[in-house]
Parts: sequence; C-alpha cells; structure tokens
Amino acid sequence: MKRIELIVAYDGTEYAGWQMQPNKETIEGVLNRELSRLLNEEIKVIGASRTDAGVHAEGAVCVFDTESRIPGEKFSYALNQSLPEDIRIRKSMEVASDFHPRKVPCRKTYRYSIWHDEFQKPTNQRYTHLIYTKLDIDAMMKACEYFKGKHDFKSICSVHTDVDNTERTIYDIHIEVTPEKSVLQSSGLINNSVIKYRERGPQQIDIYVTGNGFLYNMVRIIAGTLIDVGQGRIKAEDIPSILDGKNRQLAGQTAPAKGLTLVGYIYKK
Amino acid sequence: MKRIELIVAYDGTEYAGWQMQPNKETIEGVLNRELSRLLNEEIKVIGASRTDAGVHAEGAVCVFDTESRIPGEKFSYALNQSLPEDIRIRKSMEVASDFHPRKVPCRKTYRYSIWHDEFQKPTNQRYTHLIYTKLDIDAMMKACEYFKGKHDFKSICSVHTDVDNTERTIYDIHIEVTPEKSVLQSSGLINNSVIKYRERGPQQIDIYVTGNGFLYNMVRIIAGTLIDVGQGRIKAEDIPSILDGKNRQLAGQTAPAKGLTLVGYIYKK
Repeated sequence: MKRIELIVAYDGTEYAGWQMQPNKETIEGVLNRELSRLLNEEIKVIGASRTDAGVHAEGAVCVFDTESRIPGEKFSYALNQSLPEDIRIRKSMEVASDFHPRKVPCRKTYRYSIWHDEFQKPTNQRYTHLIYTKLDIDAMMKACEYFKGKHDFKSICSVHTDVDNTERTIYDIHIEVTPEKSVLQSSGLINNSVIKYRERGPQQIDIYVTGNGFLYNMVRIIAGTLIDVGQGRIKAEDIPSILDGKNRQLAGQTAPAKGLTLVGYIYKK
Repeated sequence: MKRIELIVAYDGTEYAGWQMQPNKETIEGVLNRELSRLLNEEIKVIGASRTDAGVHAEGAVCVFDTESRIPGEKFSYALNQSLPEDIRIRKSMEVASDFHPRKVPCRKTYRYSIWHDEFQKPTNQRYTHLIYTKLDIDAMMKACEYFKGKHDFKSICSVHTDVDNTERTIYDIHIEVTPEKSVLQSSGLINNSVIKYRERGPQQIDIYVTGNGFLYNMVRIIAGTLIDVGQGRIKAEDIPSILDGKNRQLAGQTAPAKGLTLVGYIYKK
C-alpha cells in the first residue's frame, strides 16, 4: 500500500461542494469514482478541506491509499484523461503513509475576488462577486490590518458552527487591485464630443487571507465585512470591537460563494 | 429614430460566433431577440466585427436604430436584466445616426491567451490555450517586432478568405507574462525531503495585437506562429520571409478559438 497526494484544482460552479452527498455531484464524489475506475480498487480520498457549493480551488489537497504500482507523479496524467474539464489534478506525488492532510499543521490561503464595475464581465462572472457601488479601497486595506494575528473569530464565523474553539491565527491578509486592461472607448460622436468609456476603469479586487485554519464561512464573512468597510457602513477602526463582541451580528454579510477560491496549502516540515 | 451603440462583452464558449445562423445560438441572434422583445420593434444590430465560434469579447461594438424614448445610456441596464449571464452590455450610448461601426477607421485590439503549465486550470480553461512544453518567451517577444507596421499579411490569413487586399497595419503587438500567484506547496515528506511544486511556476502569456483591421483568423495565426517560435520550430528572424512569401503554409497553425478575446475598439474622431 502506498499513499498518494493529489493537488486538485476545480471550478466549483457546477458542483455541490467538495464533500460527497447523495444524489449530488461533488468534487470528492468525482475523484473517488474516477480513481476507483482507474485503479479497480475502492478508493476514498481524504481531503484537507471541504469547500462549499460554488467555491473554487487552485490547490486543494487530498490523499488516498492504493495497491497500484503506478508511480506517484503519474497519477495526475492518468486522472486528467478522464476527469471532466472543470476538475484537474495539478500535481501528484507519493507521500509518507501516515501523512494526514487535516492533522498536520499548515498555512492555508484563500482568495476572495470582487469585480468592481457596473456589470459582471462574462469571462470572469463565474469567479467574482460584483460590487457596482463605489468602494474605498484604502479603508478596506486599513481594515485588513486589524484581522491579523491570533483572535477569537466567533463574530466571523457562521452561527451554524459547532466547534469548541473559535480562536484562529491569520498570518497574512492583504488586498491586490488589478485594473482591467482595456482600450479607451471613444466612439459614436454626438455633436463632435468624445465619449469616454469610464471615469474609473473596471478593476478586480482580490482579498488574500492566509491562516492556520478557518472557521465555517470565515473568509466569506471577512470579505463581506471588508465590503461594508469599503461602502462606509463599518469603519476600519471598528474591527477590533467587532472581534471582541464575539457576536456574528456585528460583522458583515457572508459574501457569495462564487467569489471564493482556495489558493493552496503550505505544510510544515 | 435614434441610433444606439452597445459595447458588448461575452463568453463565446456556448455560442456559434457573433453572426446569426439558422438553428444556432449566436451573439447577434440573442441581442436581436432581446432588443426586439424589450422595444417591441424588429431590431437588427449592425456589428463592428464577426467573431468565430468560441471567441470571447470584452468590448465588441454594435449599433441599432430605434423609435424608443429610452435614453441611450439606459439600454445597458435594461438589456442586462434579460440577457443570459454569458453576454453583458458594458455600456450603451446614443450616437450619430450615420455612425456605422464598420465604415469608420478604428484601432482594434485582440488578446490571445496561452496557459503555460502542465495541465489546464479549470478556472481559466475556457479562455486560454494550453501549452505544456517549454516556451522561449524572449524569442517570441523578438518575433513580435517583425509583425509591426504595414505588411501584406497574405501568409497570415486563412486560405478561405476572399478579400482583394491583404495589406493591413499592425500598430502594436506585444506579450505580457503573468506568473500564477500560488503558494509553495511543500507537503508530504518522503524521506524528509521537501517536494517543491514546480521549478518554473505556471504563467499566463498574453499576446496583444492592435491593428487597423484583421484578415480572417489573422490573430490566431499570429499566435500559432509565435508558439512555433517559442517552441523553436521557427526563428524570430524568419518572420519577414514568411510575410514576403505570401503563402499560408509558411506560417504557424491557427491557434484554437478559445484563447482569443476581442478586447475593444478605438474609433478616430
């Protein structure tokens, strides 16, 4: 028996999340089915995380055990032949037989993507959340700082959580802004005046969060809270009292799943 | 009667291109249908370009005439309520009644996107062409220079073209490389050695081309030719003789439609 690790990417749009559920297509379900078929064994992957319906991933991690003699690094090639195009194994490798991806300390990174424009853009609407009002990005960046470090994040997790300990550590949280590369649209003269496309061009606003673990919906609630800061409903300086209040009602709404992407993991040696 | 201009974005994956065809879903067909329904008039848009099946757009242009009293800038909001999510009007405006988007000189920009990695990434596989072999990007950038300026591009257009004049002017052509933001994947120790994710990280390679007009498949053939340069089959210095040869066989393959995006137009005053 050997243990194989898969680094998995997926477009979560058409799936009911990672975790297997009866009568629904899930990432875990597809992987188990395709691995079992490939190897003629009953394979059940053990995932590092369970992402919700609609959430995407670039570097999800899972492991499984097999009697197969296929070399660890070849599983990616073999699986990608039969996986649907919205799931891909980015890399595979043999790992220690006792490596359990949920029991080893790690740093986990998520990205929450906002499309800041009047309307969704069709070529990224599956992966971004539209905000069409003005956003004070400087205020959002200030607010990020207050989330850093070790805190009780009870205000920042779904009330439908039943973990005992709501303390987590955020190692990094920052925002990156990417203006859309577009052309100046000057066309269609009316009275010989040039119509400019936009005052402020469309931009993608990516919120990156890295921590030692995340409570249920924590990143989506951080994103919703930062959106509230950007729209002026919450001040950046309010974040510490929101955390101290240990009350979900103090924070922002849970931002939609489609804007969230699991970027990846770093496991400690 | 007034003339309205629409700036249209679309994910071309599920469409048979811009131009209406019987029994197929096309961008033009959807726009005509939704406009006619909205305005209770028979509307036929006049498009600036006809993109092929699978090609995307961020700033396609079309116009139509209407008796409606809806202000020009409101058409975007009205139409976006009923359009499918893979087509969006980014902006609308009233224009001069004689503005014909194919008869006014313009600069038109396309982007051809390559995903340079072992496998497609599910969250961009609809919009990029996978190249998993090594690419000499410096050579590709050198090759770009030879396409600039006014040339007979007969070698760089589909043999199924029936235009008289194959001369066009390329104002700009350049390549932008965006490394993937990823985390160092170190996990699953075997004999205590750390497994690095990749030697060279995944990257998106975008080829931007701006010209006064394009022959059929010209940008996709430029992309295919640059890929040949990147893979060492063609030298950058060969490009002038490829152009002088006026023979389609000398250039590279036509790269797949899914990697192509019409970025937008600039019309002269």
